[in-house]
Amino acid sequence: MTDNITFSERLETVGDKVTLALDALIPRVIGPESELYSAMRYAALGGGKRLRPLFVLECGRLFDVPAKRLMRVAAAVECIHTYSLIHDDLPCMDNDDLRRGQPTVHKAYSESLAVLAGDALQTLAFEILADEETHSQPRIRVALIENLAKASGARGMVGGQAIDMSATGAKMEMALIARMQRMKTGSLIQFSAEAGAIMAGASDEARQALTGFAHDLGLAFQITDDLLDAEGDPKKTGKAVGKDAAQGKASFVDDLGVEGARQHTKLLGEQAKAHLDIFGSSATILHQSIDFIVNRSR
Amino acid sequence: MTDNITFSERLETVGDKVTLALDALIPRVIGPESELYSAMRYAALGGGKRLRPLFVLECGRLFDVPAKRLMRVAAAVECIHTYSLIHDDLPCMDNDDLRRGQPTVHKAYSESLAVLAGDALQTLAFEILADEETHSQPRIRVALIENLAKASGARGMVGGQAIDMSATGAKMEMALIARMQRMKTGSLIQFSAEAGAIMAGASDEARQALTGFAHDLGLAFQITDDLLDAEGDPKKTGKAVGKDAAQGKASFVDDLGVEGARQHTKLLGEQAKAHLDIFGSSATILHQSIDFIVNRSR
Repeated sequence: MTDNITFSERLETVGDKVTLALDALIPRVIGPESELYSAMRYAALGGGKRLRPLFVLECGRLFDVPAKRLMRVAAAVECIHTYSLIHDDLPCMDNDDLRRGQPTVHKAYSESLAVLAGDALQTLAFEILADEETHSQPRIRVALIENLAKASGARGMVGGQAIDMSATGAKMEMALIARMQRMKTGSLIQFSAEAGAIMAGASDEARQALTGFAHDLGLAFQITDDLLDAEGDPKKTGKAVGKDAAQGKASFVDDLGVEGARQHTKLLGEQAKAHLDIFGSSATILHQSIDFIVNRSR
Repeated sequence: MTDNITFSERLETVGDKVTLALDALIPRVIGPESELYSAMRYAALGGGKRLRPLFVLECGRLFDVPAKRLMRVAAAVECIHTYSLIHDDLPCMDNDDLRRGQPTVHKAYSESLAVLAGDALQTLAFEILADEETHSQPRIRVALIENLAKASGARGMVGGQAIDMSATGAKMEMALIARMQRMKTGSLIQFSAEAGAIMAGASDEARQALTGFAHDLGLAFQITDDLLDAEGDPKKTGKAVGKDAAQGKASFVDDLGVEGARQHTKLLGEQAKAHLDIFGSSATILHQSIDFIVNRSR
């Protein structure tokens, strides 16, 4: 249990740091566009587990990439993740009133500002990566941009959300659920895990190990999400539960059952750890992140 | 009149070419995400005047940038422009049912697909620019990305749209209308005009001339838009007219009157031409584009 406490503390520290980075990157502004910036700040600074930033920082540390540069990439990833949550919460999408226990952006502001704040956060992610403070070499910055675009666009995150929306009410096969989740949440987790390797020009072997780690971890993360939706405590998760089932949404729990889903996340967690063997004890915090994801209650 | 016919033909040729480029960049796909790609294609290949691509191509030609590379930048700009139109048309924004005489994306598909198709088109713009086919040098690609992000994010296009939405029903001062339009439409036109200079590493003098040209042209473009909304023919414009006034939206015509607005666009057109003097006869088509914008009926 000591390890888990240590990990939670580490995650909290990372969370504070990325919030400070985002605070500096999304300034308060005076004038007629102040509401737009306010909505962007409300969503981006409002917390969340900040697991993706942790992956960027911990995987990047394996290759001695400076923390200051990794933090900019972590902030860019969080901008993409936050924009996707704002848009996913919209009435025409998942129609969620609460996110992390707080009113969603379209509830706290307006639907139009929710659309625009999401749009501007996406743009900001690419602007952050293009800046030379992220890396001195333009070819590395452009590689980060290309990889993030591929992970978050129609072939990645947005495509996964489109499949998710199209399948509401329909019975999805397990293979399609897995594909949808790999695109919707897996691809951005994979970019988070690989970013440091891209920045350091790491070996193919190291990069493949991180790809494998991210793949198994991403799936474990999503199945745990489905388990929490099926039987979690709304006070802990900060959002309504049983929603996916009520909306007829496809879920791993439908297919595997609660016990089967739990077994599957354990297996995926062990696989994820095995991928990290080549990094030895440097990957301790990443090991702990796997336990955290498999055992989390929110 | 001969000049105008020549220009219209040139614009049509550019339009066909950029449509073909977008057709290749947004493939038809089979499978569960096919509707997303279909919505992206519907919006991006569905026409429009394609003035921004013309600016990219004609301004880039002044510096002998290869047409094939310019066409990729033109396609990226059109992806950003198209995404902004899809989102601006949404019920929570301008609530438009028609665009270019056709049902808007949320009418032809669904609101959720309209949000997602817009999101994915924005991502695609940056993915196109990051690819080495756009330019052999990473530092040029990253400069294009940085400039496009600044032009289209919270400090540019999205910020301008936020000001526009916030001001509905309120009387806006002329200076604020001008600022809003410079952000909302001017900044992307400016990027289109400057992209070739960025790609060629052109002199500050040349770049400033294009900035001045784009500034005056962008304003002339917007005032003509307001004039068409105030008194245009819906059969020609392909959209409802009198809508801005009905929604209490700020317009240059309110402030200047129809005759004053017309005079102002003429003056801006002459100023825009004067900026191009340093390019001599190479800028003939850009001169014609100014006349086209000032005199257009749609």
